[in-house]
Amino acid sequence: MADLFGGIEAGGTKFVCAVGTGPDDIRSETRFPTTDPQDTIARAIAFFQYEAGSVPLAAIGIASFGPIDSHPGSPTWGHITSTPKSGWAQTDLASAVARALAVPIAFDTDVNGAALGEYRWGAAQCLETFVYLTVGTGIGGGAMVEGRLLHGLVHPEMGHMLIARREDDEYSGRCPFHGSCLEGLASGPALEERWGAKAESLDPDHPAWELEAHYLALGLANLICAISAQRIILGGGVMEQLQLFPLVRDKVRALLNGYIQAPAITEENDRFIVPPSLGSRAGVLGAIALAERSVGA
Amino acid sequence: MADLFGGIEAGGTKFVCAVGTGPDDIRSETRFPTTDPQDTIARAIAFFQYEAGSVPLAAIGIASFGPIDSHPGSPTWGHITSTPKSGWAQTDLASAVARALAVPIAFDTDVNGAALGEYRWGAAQCLETFVYLTVGTGIGGGAMVEGRLLHGLVHPEMGHMLIARREDDEYSGRCPFHGSCLEGLASGPALEERWGAKAESLDPDHPAWELEAHYLALGLANLICAISAQRIILGGGVMEQLQLFPLVRDKVRALLNGYIQAPAITEENDRFIVPPSLGSRAGVLGAIALAERSVGA
Repeated sequence: MADLFGGIEAGGTKFVCAVGTGPDDIRSETRFPTTDPQDTIARAIAFFQYEAGSVPLAAIGIASFGPIDSHPGSPTWGHITSTPKSGWAQTDLASAVARALAVPIAFDTDVNGAALGEYRWGAAQCLETFVYLTVGTGIGGGAMVEGRLLHGLVHPEMGHMLIARREDDEYSGRCPFHGSCLEGLASGPALEERWGAKAESLDPDHPAWELEAHYLALGLANLICAISAQRIILGGGVMEQLQLFPLVRDKVRALLNGYIQAPAITEENDRFIVPPSLGSRAGVLGAIALAERSVGA
Repeated sequence: MADLFGGIEAGGTKFVCAVGTGPDDIRSETRFPTTDPQDTIARAIAFFQYEAGSVPLAAIGIASFGPIDSHPGSPTWGHITSTPKSGWAQTDLASAVARALAVPIAFDTDVNGAALGEYRWGAAQCLETFVYLTVGTGIGGGAMVEGRLLHGLVHPEMGHMLIARREDDEYSGRCPFHGSCLEGLASGPALEERWGAKAESLDPDHPAWELEAHYLALGLANLICAISAQRIILGGGVMEQLQLFPLVRDKVRALLNGYIQAPAITEENDRFIVPPSLGSRAGVLGAIALAERSVGA
């Protein structure tokens, strides 16, 4: 019988918990808002205690908002670290769940979880080196490189790459640390603040999208130069504006200007820069994929 | 008895070939200028034919200027591909050597070779995720990520990350593809063209170095955000101006502005951004390290 896994998508606004083996086999699932750490974590634990009454879980994966400490052996492994989210800084998330449920925990960033889910069942199957970038309230990225999830010193902070503000853009950027980094210029709230309207209320041919695509393309060009990704998956609320995809693809090609000679970039780049394919369960499926990978299943 | 390896540093201006097992054991070595492909490759082969008369080699590593195709199984594996270097585009380098010498070949970029050499014997020992960036005639980078050398779609082109030209800089950049990318603004020839003097002739307190450090720091900040490197090794001719190191370190810290909470970045960054430690044999030692790694020694 195949192992059964738990997944926790630990988001800044909601938690999603599920038990299953993959997209076609989710046995049970629950969603609740992220309140304070104690109540939220207790609610996640209670879900699995109830579920685990019937079938034991081989592992639980947690794909968490960050910054986090995901380094095995670190004294603060499993913690959400310096988040500005009220009450959540220095929260021990993973060991709290591990202790309460006596089950192995795989702990990683939400974006690494999403990347792994897409690798396992979605838009990154059979690839070894790719990036998952989410563009929403913030901008964050996860990556698989040569078959391994990228962690490095801490974990990537792709949204904070420093890019050039365009001359015709009078908006100065909203990142409290960097002003006009990628997140400061191109996150959902930046878009809203610049144009004075909710992103989803802007027409698909509003100039907002051309500028948004320009900034995203600058970020992507740098990721391509740094990581040499075989594919880039763009998720998050802002990317639900699908008119962005062809704009971003054209601008990436124009910015790189033929320098990197790879058909994926110079020709068929509708398969190079793509939306995620797991839909609304992407987060929790990513967490289940983390659990599965941790036991070598 | 330990395996004996060959190494070829295939550079745009010179080739270095050596036989040995590491920095303390180079049995023989030769250097000659890079002329046309036929003569240059023949000369490298002749060196090893003579050397291999005595002791057989377990493998030869080639660390080559690029762009190259280093993907095993590709029909053009082992080729230098679209280089502007006269006569060298689409040159089959690795299989020519393999056929002539009947020895396994490990083929990678010069910068991945340099990264691996530093990992094996130099400034990156015991690290899993780090970047080696060379700043000279061009700017190029190699990386190890989670213990694997990064190749991805082609290989990184870190020198072509797009960065913001500083307002007080009237020089427009010299990259024929991107104008003001990192290489366009901060390579040795860019420095020379901007200031109208050879880099090594400028005083250590000439304003050139502050601006150079600014651009390098912009590139490094982006690499840190993209790859989360545990260390960055800066080599190449321009970095022989050692006054650049403290300037670059200070500017990287200032640009990231405390966002990434890691002591390596916020505190002890004299060990985070460092010169290479293998000296003038770095290239060929990197090639030997590639050979050694390819046979799992």
